[in-house]
Amino acid sequence: ESRLPSFEQLAKMVATNEVTWINVDGLGNTRLIEALGEHFKLHRLALEDVVNVHQRSKVDQYADIMFIVLRMPHVPTEATGGRVTTEQLSIFAGPKFVITFQEGRPGDCFDRVRLRLREGATKLREAGPGYLVHALLDGVIDNYYPVLEGYAERLDYLEDAVLEAGSHVMDELHEVKADLLILRRAIWPLRETVASLSRDESTLFGESSRPYLRDCYDHVVQIVDLVETYREITADLRDLHMSSLSNRTNDIMRVLTIISTIFMPLTFIAGIYGMNFHTSSSRFNMPELDWEYGYLLCLAVMFVIAAGQMYYFYYRGWILPSFRARK
Amino acid sequence: ESRLPSFEQLAKMVATNEVTWINVDGLGNTRLIEALGEHFKLHRLALEDVVNVHQRSKVDQYADIMFIVLRMPHVPTEATGGRVTTEQLSIFAGPKFVITFQEGRPGDCFDRVRLRLREGATKLREAGPGYLVHALLDGVIDNYYPVLEGYAERLDYLEDAVLEAGSHVMDELHEVKADLLILRRAIWPLRETVASLSRDESTLFGESSRPYLRDCYDHVVQIVDLVETYREITADLRDLHMSSLSNRTNDIMRVLTIISTIFMPLTFIAGIYGMNFHTSSSRFNMPELDWEYGYLLCLAVMFVIAAGQMYYFYYRGWILPSFRARK
Amino acid sequence: ESRLPSFEQLAKMVATNEVTWINVDGLGNTRLIEALGEHFKLHRLALEDVVNVHQRSKVDQYADIMFIVLRMPHVPTEATGGRVTTEQLSIFAGPKFVITFQEGRPGDCFDRVRLRLREGATKLREAGPGYLVHALLDGVIDNYYPVLEGYAERLDYLEDAVLEAGSHVMDELHEVKADLLILRRAIWPLRETVASLSRDESTLFGESSRPYLRDCYDHVVQIVDLVETYREITADLRDLHMSSLSNRTNDIMRVLTIISTIFMPLTFIAGIYGMNFHTSSSRFNMPELDWEYGYLLCLAVMFVIAAGQMYYFYYRGWILPSFRARK
Amino acid sequence: ESRLPSFEQLAKMVATNEVTWINVDGLGNTRLIEALGEHFKLHRLALEDVVNVHQRSKVDQYADIMFIVLRMPHVPTEATGGRVTTEQLSIFAGPKFVITFQEGRPGDCFDRVRLRLREGATKLREAGPGYLVHALLDGVIDNYYPVLEGYAERLDYLEDAVLEAGSHVMDELHEVKADLLILRRAIWPLRETVASLSRDESTLFGESSRPYLRDCYDHVVQIVDLVETYREITADLRDLHMSSLSNRTNDIMRVLTIISTIFMPLTFIAGIYGMNFHTSSSRFNMPELDWEYGYLLCLAVMFVIAAGQMYYFYYRGWILPSFRARK
Amino acid sequence: ESRLPSFEQLAKMVATNEVTWINVDGLGNTRLIEALGEHFKLHRLALEDVVNVHQRSKVDQYADIMFIVLRMPHVPTEATGGRVTTEQLSIFAGPKFVITFQEGRPGDCFDRVRLRLREGATKLREAGPGYLVHALLDGVIDNYYPVLEGYAERLDYLEDAVLEAGSHVMDELHEVKADLLILRRAIWPLRETVASLSRDESTLFGESSRPYLRDCYDHVVQIVDLVETYREITADLRDLHMSSLSNRTNDIMRVLTIISTIFMPLTFIAGIYGMNFHTSSSRFNMPELDWEYGYLLCLAVMFVIAAGQMYYFYYRGWILPSFRARK
Repeated sequence: ESRLPSFEQLAKMVATNEVTWINVDGLGNTRLIEALGEHFKLHRLALEDVVNVHQRSKVDQYADIMFIVLRMPHVPTEATGGRVTTEQLSIFAGPKFVITFQEGRPGDCFDRVRLRLREGATKLREAGPGYLVHALLDGVIDNYYPVLEGYAERLDYLEDAVLEAGSHVMDELHEVKADLLILRRAIWPLRETVASLSRDESTLFGESSRPYLRDCYDHVVQIVDLVETYREITADLRDLHMSSLSNRTNDIMRVLTIISTIFMPLTFIAGIYGMNFHTSSSRFNMPELDWEYGYLLCLAVMFVIAAGQMYYFYYRGWILPSFRARK
Repeated sequence: ESRLPSFEQLAKMVATNEVTWINVDGLGNTRLIEALGEHFKLHRLALEDVVNVHQRSKVDQYADIMFIVLRMPHVPTEATGGRVTTEQLSIFAGPKFVITFQEGRPGDCFDRVRLRLREGATKLREAGPGYLVHALLDGVIDNYYPVLEGYAERLDYLEDAVLEAGSHVMDELHEVKADLLILRRAIWPLRETVASLSRDESTLFGESSRPYLRDCYDHVVQIVDLVETYREITADLRDLHMSSLSNRTNDIMRVLTIISTIFMPLTFIAGIYGMNFHTSSSRFNMPELDWEYGYLLCLAVMFVIAAGQMYYFYYRGWILPSFRARK
Repeated sequence: ESRLPSFEQLAKMVATNEVTWINVDGLGNTRLIEALGEHFKLHRLALEDVVNVHQRSKVDQYADIMFIVLRMPHVPTEATGGRVTTEQLSIFAGPKFVITFQEGRPGDCFDRVRLRLREGATKLREAGPGYLVHALLDGVIDNYYPVLEGYAERLDYLEDAVLEAGSHVMDELHEVKADLLILRRAIWPLRETVASLSRDESTLFGESSRPYLRDCYDHVVQIVDLVETYREITADLRDLHMSSLSNRTNDIMRVLTIISTIFMPLTFIAGIYGMNFHTSSSRFNMPELDWEYGYLLCLAVMFVIAAGQMYYFYYRGWILPSFRARK
Repeated sequence: ESRLPSFEQLAKMVATNEVTWINVDGLGNTRLIEALGEHFKLHRLALEDVVNVHQRSKVDQYADIMFIVLRMPHVPTEATGGRVTTEQLSIFAGPKFVITFQEGRPGDCFDRVRLRLREGATKLREAGPGYLVHALLDGVIDNYYPVLEGYAERLDYLEDAVLEAGSHVMDELHEVKADLLILRRAIWPLRETVASLSRDESTLFGESSRPYLRDCYDHVVQIVDLVETYREITADLRDLHMSSLSNRTNDIMRVLTIISTIFMPLTFIAGIYGMNFHTSSSRFNMPELDWEYGYLLCLAVMFVIAAGQMYYFYYRGWILPSFRARK
Repeated sequence: ESRLPSFEQLAKMVATNEVTWINVDGLGNTRLIEALGEHFKLHRLALEDVVNVHQRSKVDQYADIMFIVLRMPHVPTEATGGRVTTEQLSIFAGPKFVITFQEGRPGDCFDRVRLRLREGATKLREAGPGYLVHALLDGVIDNYYPVLEGYAERLDYLEDAVLEAGSHVMDELHEVKADLLILRRAIWPLRETVASLSRDESTLFGESSRPYLRDCYDHVVQIVDLVETYREITADLRDLHMSSLSNRTNDIMRVLTIISTIFMPLTFIAGIYGMNFHTSSSRFNMPELDWEYGYLLCLAVMFVIAAGQMYYFYYRGWILPSFRARK
């Protein structure tokens, strides 16, 4: 619990204390990692996994040391462009020590554990490394909830945006989908990990901690459930968006078609009587132009055509559909 | 069965009665919950789950107390905006008591159980806590049926709306889909819960109640089946809607194209003879204007063009397709 | 095999005959059902399932009585609007009797069984209730084939309709999909039912009837296979229909675009020379009108523009694509 | 191996030879089938399956006779309209005989087996019926490869056709999809069949033929893999085709929109100055017609409008997008 | 480790060395392969699989020789048209030898293994054939990472391209999808292969190599995970692309519709007053042409109509939507 003790102090602490928790924040100091590995007899393959930070969650047993890999999500902030990120947490649990390695990003999810340790929570200090591992696991799992709540809010907001035909909906939906894919890749292996921990027969977790691990498992299953649900909602919103796009295309087309089909014949008729055939050359050449009511008749014909088309469109439900449906 | 007895009365009731059913409606009174937890030795983790009302259905065994979480659906009403909601029901079943916690919304699905208790249904009063738990479970499961019937009706109505090209179909389909997702999330874990109850070897349920639990399980499987079927129907309706949107776009386009392609060439010809080239300046300048049958010829050409296009469209099946198909 | 004997006669028949088959057609007479239930000691939950006709296929064992629920499909007729329907068949098989309950719709699928009984098929009369149950099961399963053949024909017809761009294809596909969903919901549980019957260790089915149950199972699996295949074909036809809709939209658009882009510039040029700028007021005002070859030049320009566009469209493959591809 | 011996000859052959292979090509001669069934004690249900040629692949054991159903694919030819078809092959394998029934279409996949028999392949003649069954099985499985290669080539060709926007792509994709569905329905049950044969404990296949059956199984799994891969590729090509359709619609729309929006305002302006308001009646009536530079100004305005729109379209990337992107 | 020794030398090396690794690069020399097969007693079926290079990954045990087939991916280069390819690697591992067959393409993934051998890595030379096989397996698996990283980069680039509406996005997405399908077909069977190797009870791999095989398995699972993730991202990008296509169609349509509906009525009005009805013939013939403010009134009416439509489009959000949303 103290920061950066020398190596000898560490050795002494492990000897005296009941359980020592060593938390290494940042993986740049390879010499430190190797020294720890040698001192605590950590397996070479496990140490490689610690440094190679794209592992899936898993639990491996090497002799009497249990090696657990977890992925901690970070609540999206402006610094990460509003995108979710996950960090690898590697845990070695031996008979009298717990060593954790983080990637070294600012902030983790163990503040509550530290608080309880500082306040001298007797159970956490005395119950052996298994209980501490459970507390860390619990901290990681609980950190998924605020992350997921953020996406729940964002999906609510996106649902409104889709109904109001916002223009950047699809890009945002794509972003949310990509983030949920990241969370999904983090949480599914975590589920297997917790399941195998709660089935584990080793001495690390005593019989009394079984309900606590089962509780962890219930939480992970609930998170899996939420992630899958959000993924389905995202897919549904995409469908809704696509359909509203089609609907709007239809609306635009309808306006275009109505205006075009009404004015094209009218303009054509006006064009006819704009022709310059010489009425004087032949009595067949546009005699209408000299008729007494020629102009009025022409306007009347135009009006009748326009009205007929309006009625046809009304009949097809292309104009005033709501008014028509009400009847 | 009596409302709000004092704590001592409760203790006495548990001692005298064969089985006591304590139903706590609303989770605001944390002191009451803690007192009950202490008196009946309920596990701390279970009590946390009671208060944290977003649990999945599950069954846990703590020593001789069985802890069951169920999700009750509420029939959608106007108060909930026509959307389905689920409420958490937590059940503790001990050797001589059954304690249930509801979230405290008005209405539950135990009126029939209460009626049978008040009328002194001997079997329910005498057959031990297992039978009461089964009755509560049965009440919860039976409550899914009216909820699902509502969605069956709504899907029928939506099918008609899709065929009549209603404009808010997609939003409603989205709503139904979201609701079915909620029901699905409630009913799948319930299925596991009931399955593990009917496999359960504990003393809570005797051998004679096995067929009743199997009956519950059959009902849950039937509900799962219905929910999945409704989800598929919703997806099919969405497809049907999208295709009818495309169909309507085609219809609109067709009208526009027919009118445009008929009147554009005609208007162009009218435009030609509306040009003001001076016939007096050159004998090549629009001599047609002075021809005896110039105007009639012009109209005839227009008619021929229009008729030709009409025939082409008829041939392509864009106008009077049904008439053509009949031939 | 006789119709409506009195109850005493029934009791006598059960006592004398080797196996008695009682077929109750219609579930309205609740008193009769209760009387039968009491006389043959049928379980109350099973009788509830008989009356509640939306059960999934299943098989339950109550003491020495086996309770089987099956769903019989009815070949779609005009009376059902061309839609498929399923009817519930409940079978109780005891050591010396078989009782079946149908919903009471006209027609069932046991005519062949009855025929064999009337003709005194010795095996059916003597081989115990198991063999009769197998015959009934076989009758139900065989009835799925004509129903499915109807859908195979309908899908063939729809494939042609899609390729010919029929207008009600989508509605019909939706209907077929909905019907296949009904059949699917009927046949999947039936599969489990027949599988559990053929695994069954009870005395109802002897070792010799094992191949016959395996044969039933093979048939059910084949039907499941057919239903799934038809569902896939329906989905494919929907895709094909959607794509042909898009194709037609493209065709319509192309015609519109070609006509519009050719005639718009031409009409514009005609419009220019239809302007009334007074050539007498200024020598800059439309001197073209007085040129000797003004009109011919104007027509020539128009022709060049139109020809140029035609070539562009031909080059893009929008007109005469097949002619171009041949080269 | 001889054609149409009399029945007595057959009986003798079975008695003398070590293993007799009887191949019945065509199922029309029911009397022959019954006679064979009676003589070799083949089960009635198996013989029904032989005649009813829509069975799924399966293997059944009746006493000491093994009954295997396989589906042989036929390479698509012009005679079948380029569509794949499958034929049922039924095999009875007893201690000293192998009887095969084909549907009787010309051609099968046993030419290699016959060749080896005629050439007196000792292993095939002496190693018992198990080895012959394996050879037949191998022949059937190997026949899937040329069929699938045909579809691989067809998909390659279709990929090119999609990119070149061929017009009958969708119909062909639909055909390929339907054919792959047929192959899939044939190959999945075959997989189970071969798996259960290689697990089989009966005396038909000795321990030494185990690697050969495992090899068959590997081949079937590979074919399953290919069929599923081709199905995915077909679905991808459909997506690609749909997207290229949308792309082309966009292209067509863009041309239409550019031409329309450029010429509509121009034509309108020309229309204005084509109006016949009498300049002599009022000094407000179109004084522009008498201006010295009226006509030139009018053309200039038109040019500015057209240029402005061209720039806007260029800015939106609707014209010369590649040129713009290069900058 | 030496190149092309004579056969006798090989025999001697096998006799003297602890483990001999023979790597055959290229499968053209069938006589060599047969000679090796005879000398080391390799099973005929296994040798057939070596030559037939489209095998799925698998592991077979023939007596004391283990036969492993793996698929090595090759990083896409310009020589392969930027497409991924896989090569078959066949491994025979006997008690004192390891024989590998490659297809003979330039480059493999065993440079690190060779380096360690040359530098005399004692563990690799002494630990038996199991350790060498593990090293080869590790080399193959590690080679998937650079290949997948290439696709990760390509998907990042494609995401940008989709958002910027690049025109060849869909073709590239199709290519990536096809490549990921190839990788998927290579990696899934590899997963089963490695899983069965790590479960294997044979003497090839000792207990101490168990963690190394588990490590291999973890890597393969991680690769499977990546491939599936990339496939989902590809599908999402396709959706995004399709939706952006629809969006652009809408944009284009909107511009067309706005321009058309504004100018069509205006052009019609201009057309009316371009008609040549003779005002002198009748006082009803277009008296407006002689009005003092006729022309100005006409322009005013046009302006009002245009302004009204602009307002309507602004109200519908078709023009300046962002400006409107800000209010």
